[in-house]
Amino acid sequence: MTEIIDLDRIKAVLKFIDPIQSIEKGFVAYSKGKAVTPPVGEMIFEDPPGEAHIKYGYLKGDDFYVIKIASGFYENPKIGLPTSTGLMLLFSQKTGEVLCILLDQGHLTDVRTAAAGAVAAKYLGPKDVHKIGIFGAGIQGRIQLKFLKSITKCRQVMVWGINQQELGSYKNDMEPLDFNIQTTMEPGDIASSCNLIVTCTPSKKPLLQAKQIRKGTHITAMGSDIPEKQELDSDILKKADKVVVDSISQVQERGESFHAMEDGAINKDDLKELGTVIENKEFQRSSEDEITVTDLTGIAVQDLQISKAVWEVIRKQKEKES
Amino acid sequence: MTEIIDLDRIKAVLKFIDPIQSIEKGFVAYSKGKAVTPPVGEMIFEDPPGEAHIKYGYLKGDDFYVIKIASGFYENPKIGLPTSTGLMLLFSQKTGEVLCILLDQGHLTDVRTAAAGAVAAKYLGPKDVHKIGIFGAGIQGRIQLKFLKSITKCRQVMVWGINQQELGSYKNDMEPLDFNIQTTMEPGDIASSCNLIVTCTPSKKPLLQAKQIRKGTHITAMGSDIPEKQELDSDILKKADKVVVDSISQVQERGESFHAMEDGAINKDDLKELGTVIENKEFQRSSEDEITVTDLTGIAVQDLQISKAVWEVIRKQKEKES
Repeated sequence: MTEIIDLDRIKAVLKFIDPIQSIEKGFVAYSKGKAVTPPVGEMIFEDPPGEAHIKYGYLKGDDFYVIKIASGFYENPKIGLPTSTGLMLLFSQKTGEVLCILLDQGHLTDVRTAAAGAVAAKYLGPKDVHKIGIFGAGIQGRIQLKFLKSITKCRQVMVWGINQQELGSYKNDMEPLDFNIQTTMEPGDIASSCNLIVTCTPSKKPLLQAKQIRKGTHITAMGSDIPEKQELDSDILKKADKVVVDSISQVQERGESFHAMEDGAINKDDLKELGTVIENKEFQRSSEDEITVTDLTGIAVQDLQISKAVWEVIRKQKEKES
Repeated sequence: MTEIIDLDRIKAVLKFIDPIQSIEKGFVAYSKGKAVTPPVGEMIFEDPPGEAHIKYGYLKGDDFYVIKIASGFYENPKIGLPTSTGLMLLFSQKTGEVLCILLDQGHLTDVRTAAAGAVAAKYLGPKDVHKIGIFGAGIQGRIQLKFLKSITKCRQVMVWGINQQELGSYKNDMEPLDFNIQTTMEPGDIASSCNLIVTCTPSKKPLLQAKQIRKGTHITAMGSDIPEKQELDSDILKKADKVVVDSISQVQERGESFHAMEDGAINKDDLKELGTVIENKEFQRSSEDEITVTDLTGIAVQDLQISKAVWEVIRKQKEKES
């Protein structure tokens, strides 16, 4: 029988899960060529403007496959609805049965994205983080910071946003979680004071320039999920000692690396995949002076891993009940 | 809030629906170019062998979009599970919200396929049907016959199958529905006695030859959903006065017309779409002597129309309740 899991239950189940570990395993499997992730399905609507994407895939030899549907309807806020929504469906790779439908309204995408940021910080971030810099005072800016808690002991944070209202709201939400939050609307403030930086904005022009980036800084960029978006000047990737991406094939079309390759600042050969980095110490940060960049565009294996992790808890809860 | 509709409720709701009318409207909209149906998503599994397909689409200016997931796992019967299963998801084209999830286990695909057969018989079948011929004594062979009840008064039926057991079971199931069922394992018996024929088998070589087909016969062929399958000899389509297909673009790759075009028996110009035929009397059957063939490969608009029809009833039931 198919289990239907609503958002409240998903949030309750997430307390029993370590998404960072699941996502880390997913990246490794992906970079070992074990993942099958066909091209994304897409529908574009005109009136009102909106889009829906279907991401799907599986690991060879695994028990599951996942189909994720995500949509963005940009006029939704006018009628009091969030712009983005979606759901994930987890199927048996042995029988085709739909095991569970996760009505997560996009929350698990937020979680798996933030977990990827934590994985990047774990293998590429400086050991001694003196201040965390967050670009983007929205949902992802919040959840990224929460996930960094288990990676670094640093609780000093500077957040960049586009107005005082969202920055105030961010500070109010995050300080009770033991962070000391400073706010700014000036990107240079973060570059000059933070050595672990996460960018999660929908920016279409670079927020940071190469000359601002100091020795020893790690930047994880995850806002650029479509070709039109860019958060980092291409020269930052040129200046970096290491540039790590989630998927070399996917950054041929989107992400910071895509722009940097288009601009001739870096070549495909300069890139390593995060899954490869996790498995090979020599590709991880090797000194506190290095500048490192991780460029995350989001891959279906992350959706697979997070939905499997949720399902695993629910399956065990069911077994206990029966 | 998303409504989750299980198979029992879907079957109950179907009693309030006229799928033939919904599907007819869908074909017309499709042939007028109002449908957007992107390429089918596909995953192929090796151990055990299985496949999953994702069909999706919408009508421009409509309120909905649909995503259908269908799978076939060929070793399922060994563990007591049906080979095929699936579900349909209906979304709002205005907000992206998932309105309902139809856990139909493939039943709505059977229904929309049979409804298409009825539409074909309505516009292309002879007025005076003296005997209905059904190739295939499975689920689709049963449901096709049920749907023909509202199209013709004829209750004389001959069914072809591959063994006496399945034929006996078919007869037992269908005679209580007021049909007089003869059975045969000889295709020629149907060709020589029936003037409204429906083929719904997974055959990979033609069951009927051109010389067997008599004046005034209509054949609806719907078994051939992948390029490898073929139920009618190509010369039958050459001999026919009218060859009507659900989708001219789709039969470039599958269906009886695909094989007949490959064999040089007919050209693309010989084909009319069912949606065009419904709207234009001159393309419908014009005499009791004509031989007509309808080649149905199955299009996403049918999935959209049937799930919309189910949702419409459920929405009204909900309104009454509240």
